[in-house]
Amino acid sequence: MDLNADLGEGFGRWSLTDDEALLACVTSANVACGFHAGDPSVMRRVCDTAAARGVRIGAQVSYRDLAGFGRRSMDVPADELAAEVAYQIGALRVFAEAAGTTVSYVKPHGALYNRAVRDDKQAAAVIEGVRLAGGDLAVLGLPGSRLLVRAAEAGLVAVEEAFADRAYTPQGTLVPRVEPGAVVHDGDEVVRRSVGIAVDRRVIAADGERIAVAARSLCVHGDTPGAAVLAHRVRAALEEAGVVVRAFA
Amino acid sequence: MDLNADLGEGFGRWSLTDDEALLACVTSANVACGFHAGDPSVMRRVCDTAAARGVRIGAQVSYRDLAGFGRRSMDVPADELAAEVAYQIGALRVFAEAAGTTVSYVKPHGALYNRAVRDDKQAAAVIEGVRLAGGDLAVLGLPGSRLLVRAAEAGLVAVEEAFADRAYTPQGTLVPRVEPGAVVHDGDEVVRRSVGIAVDRRVIAADGERIAVAARSLCVHGDTPGAAVLAHRVRAALEEAGVVVRAFA
Amino acid sequence: MDLNADLGEGFGRWSLTDDEALLACVTSANVACGFHAGDPSVMRRVCDTAAARGVRIGAQVSYRDLAGFGRRSMDVPADELAAEVAYQIGALRVFAEAAGTTVSYVKPHGALYNRAVRDDKQAAAVIEGVRLAGGDLAVLGLPGSRLLVRAAEAGLVAVEEAFADRAYTPQGTLVPRVEPGAVVHDGDEVVRRSVGIAVDRRVIAADGERIAVAARSLCVHGDTPGAAVLAHRVRAALEEAGVVVRAFA
Amino acid sequence: MDLNADLGEGFGRWSLTDDEALLACVTSANVACGFHAGDPSVMRRVCDTAAARGVRIGAQVSYRDLAGFGRRSMDVPADELAAEVAYQIGALRVFAEAAGTTVSYVKPHGALYNRAVRDDKQAAAVIEGVRLAGGDLAVLGLPGSRLLVRAAEAGLVAVEEAFADRAYTPQGTLVPRVEPGAVVHDGDEVVRRSVGIAVDRRVIAADGERIAVAARSLCVHGDTPGAAVLAHRVRAALEEAGVVVRAFA
Repeated sequence: MDLNADLGEGFGRWSLTDDEALLACVTSANVACGFHAGDPSVMRRVCDTAAARGVRIGAQVSYRDLAGFGRRSMDVPADELAAEVAYQIGALRVFAEAAGTTVSYVKPHGALYNRAVRDDKQAAAVIEGVRLAGGDLAVLGLPGSRLLVRAAEAGLVAVEEAFADRAYTPQGTLVPRVEPGAVVHDGDEVVRRSVGIAVDRRVIAADGERIAVAARSLCVHGDTPGAAVLAHRVRAALEEAGVVVRAFA
Repeated sequence: MDLNADLGEGFGRWSLTDDEALLACVTSANVACGFHAGDPSVMRRVCDTAAARGVRIGAQVSYRDLAGFGRRSMDVPADELAAEVAYQIGALRVFAEAAGTTVSYVKPHGALYNRAVRDDKQAAAVIEGVRLAGGDLAVLGLPGSRLLVRAAEAGLVAVEEAFADRAYTPQGTLVPRVEPGAVVHDGDEVVRRSVGIAVDRRVIAADGERIAVAARSLCVHGDTPGAAVLAHRVRAALEEAGVVVRAFA
Repeated sequence: MDLNADLGEGFGRWSLTDDEALLACVTSANVACGFHAGDPSVMRRVCDTAAARGVRIGAQVSYRDLAGFGRRSMDVPADELAAEVAYQIGALRVFAEAAGTTVSYVKPHGALYNRAVRDDKQAAAVIEGVRLAGGDLAVLGLPGSRLLVRAAEAGLVAVEEAFADRAYTPQGTLVPRVEPGAVVHDGDEVVRRSVGIAVDRRVIAADGERIAVAARSLCVHGDTPGAAVLAHRVRAALEEAGVVVRAFA
Repeated sequence: MDLNADLGEGFGRWSLTDDEALLACVTSANVACGFHAGDPSVMRRVCDTAAARGVRIGAQVSYRDLAGFGRRSMDVPADELAAEVAYQIGALRVFAEAAGTTVSYVKPHGALYNRAVRDDKQAAAVIEGVRLAGGDLAVLGLPGSRLLVRAAEAGLVAVEEAFADRAYTPQGTLVPRVEPGAVVHDGDEVVRRSVGIAVDRRVIAADGERIAVAARSLCVHGDTPGAAVLAHRVRAALEEAGVVVRAFA
């Protein structure tokens, strides 16, 4: 099982994610590329540390929206979106390569991630941006999303991920954040669900039913207080349960 | 003699440079990378056309200043500046490589260009950014500038350029834009000076004296009305005078 | 009949609208406030000229989207949107008041304008922003739009406008820009439609039927070549037809 | 003695200053206006709380530089700078007035503050912006700065401020941040110096000498951990020493 987290989400004077602590724990780092967060200095620093620790680097591409942290869905025309995605990947690649490694995958951020689940046009535009960027990139996304369908069609490696701290509907989709109980705040529960996803490939849905969850990567959140500590607990619990924690192939 | 021009200086709804017409004439295109101008769609389009026409692509890196078009000198700390330069080069490289070519050189824009003439710290920071970006990039700049000194020290190819539409002091530096007569507006005069620089390696300075100008590249401006037409005239006059117009080696 | 146009849509080095020529012709100026276009210097200059010519000043408020020129619909939460609208009005008011006049009305720009036709939440948020800004502002919008309904409910003056260069559906709504024939490019036709709207309160819809159009203001576009010339022709034709061209009460 | 602090320095997802705690303690709030920090929602919230607590509101105007937090000196032409200053004041005024109060004063932020100490051109431009904004604004600055000289010449109230946590040279200027010992980190020492400035109008300079410090306002910093707690201690110590803590007249 791969462990991924959003990293490098500071900007200038502002910091958010505890990048050092998270990089000591995850196997894949989704690095912000400047459109919702992440200035060039932060990107450089995160890439250097990730490379030193053998953590895989991914481009966390976003709508151009610093003020909204990329969480406001935008009707970006397909050709603009593709170019914006490629731009971000290229900018990050410089720092990954300067650190002796490279960008291995792409994961859309925030509103773009959610929109690419069902909006085929934007999903295709993201994949067109990935294709433009070249370099055999994998794509990380929700199982069944248009994003992963389009990635597979384009011959890219499509990696399904699960969320240990998000509630699932009986159909296996995420409970929207606006609904009560959408986010699991209890650390013990998050750890339990992580192990369930990794070992049994199952999780308890919002209606109490156990449902199947296929995932090669588990996302732990990095932008809340105590996030790094919880990520470390998840990793320890997975290893104790005999799960090999390493980057996806 | 190489002919270079600033290109791709639109942004979103706004356009400025007549990229198509200039790319039919110059041998090196200084492409804006998003910090003073140039959105990802413009960058992609310019790279595609440049590649199709065999025009060399350079990264026209700038301070982060859309509102000021990169013309306001900024005290950016060296490490931030280096990372910002590398970021811009990486972003442009994606589009150059998608078009089947690459980024061959770097030329700072506006206030950063002027500052890197004498400010050794910022000159060194730009070169550190170029070095971070890797890929054997040449650096285009003013003869005698700290930028070119630092580039040479770093083992990079330093390319000296001259300006056919700018007045020179008797010492061979440019007359500052704020002084009267700093810019040569007469097209015939610009053409004459271009041939003088290319053939005789000399130009008439502001005091009437002929001075030596060493240059492997000649900059023609692209952001004024009639710029593309004048650039074509310059090229035709150079070729008529027996000058081989091609990208620097 | 009032004549309104979008103005001040340059930004830094870039210009777009021929503000001087348009201000010699329109009675209401929709001034960009910095979120999709319009830097403080442009805003100041436009307010000074508008005040000198007795042209009424309105705030052309937008999503925060310079790269997309405010033309990309965005899911901005209501409270953020209200604050963003108020911010823009306040910024413009400084320059209007320094010029001896004030901001009289608000007109949303681009994607926000279109969205506030049917999206009641965003329409209400815009009106909340207008209310926050105080000062008895009128609101300019499409007849029947949620925006004008919400404006009227809030006790604000709601001003209906018509477009001489846009095709109408038989139901009296605008034909979406993506459809063929959505924009009327023929100048003579635009002039004819302007007079029809002002004198007969009618326009020929896309199916050839004459339909009723209620409007106290007529929008002429300012961001295309020849826009100012066409606006002058429209005004001349209206006056020749006996229409009094003056700002809405 | 007035107590002022920089507030509202979050932006979108990022927060920095503990605005609630600081507003429970200071008498003047320097509110960020969106150019170095401070989005419209933050500005609205801070103005609402400040008004409810009777804290005076000032516009903390800055260079347009989110990425550098306004800490990078910029060569902004005077007319642009004046317009940018007025724009920020106007934007903040909307929220102050919606909260039932107004903007009472202006204090430049970061690099602009430092530059306006000696750069007469930029100092004059800031004051021109304040004058454009109208409304009888006071100006907060360093004693002897060009900013306060220009403010007084323009007939504005010039308010001198002192810094309890910054080292002073024997000449009464601040020791530059780059030099060792420029910032006083020891809380007890900061409290002691605050009382010395308020009661004795004196402070111990870097060379150990006691020097005179004229100040009607004392600046406490808000953007460091523990800042709000220290601000409360300073206020308590001042009151214990018999100093009346209230906004400047």
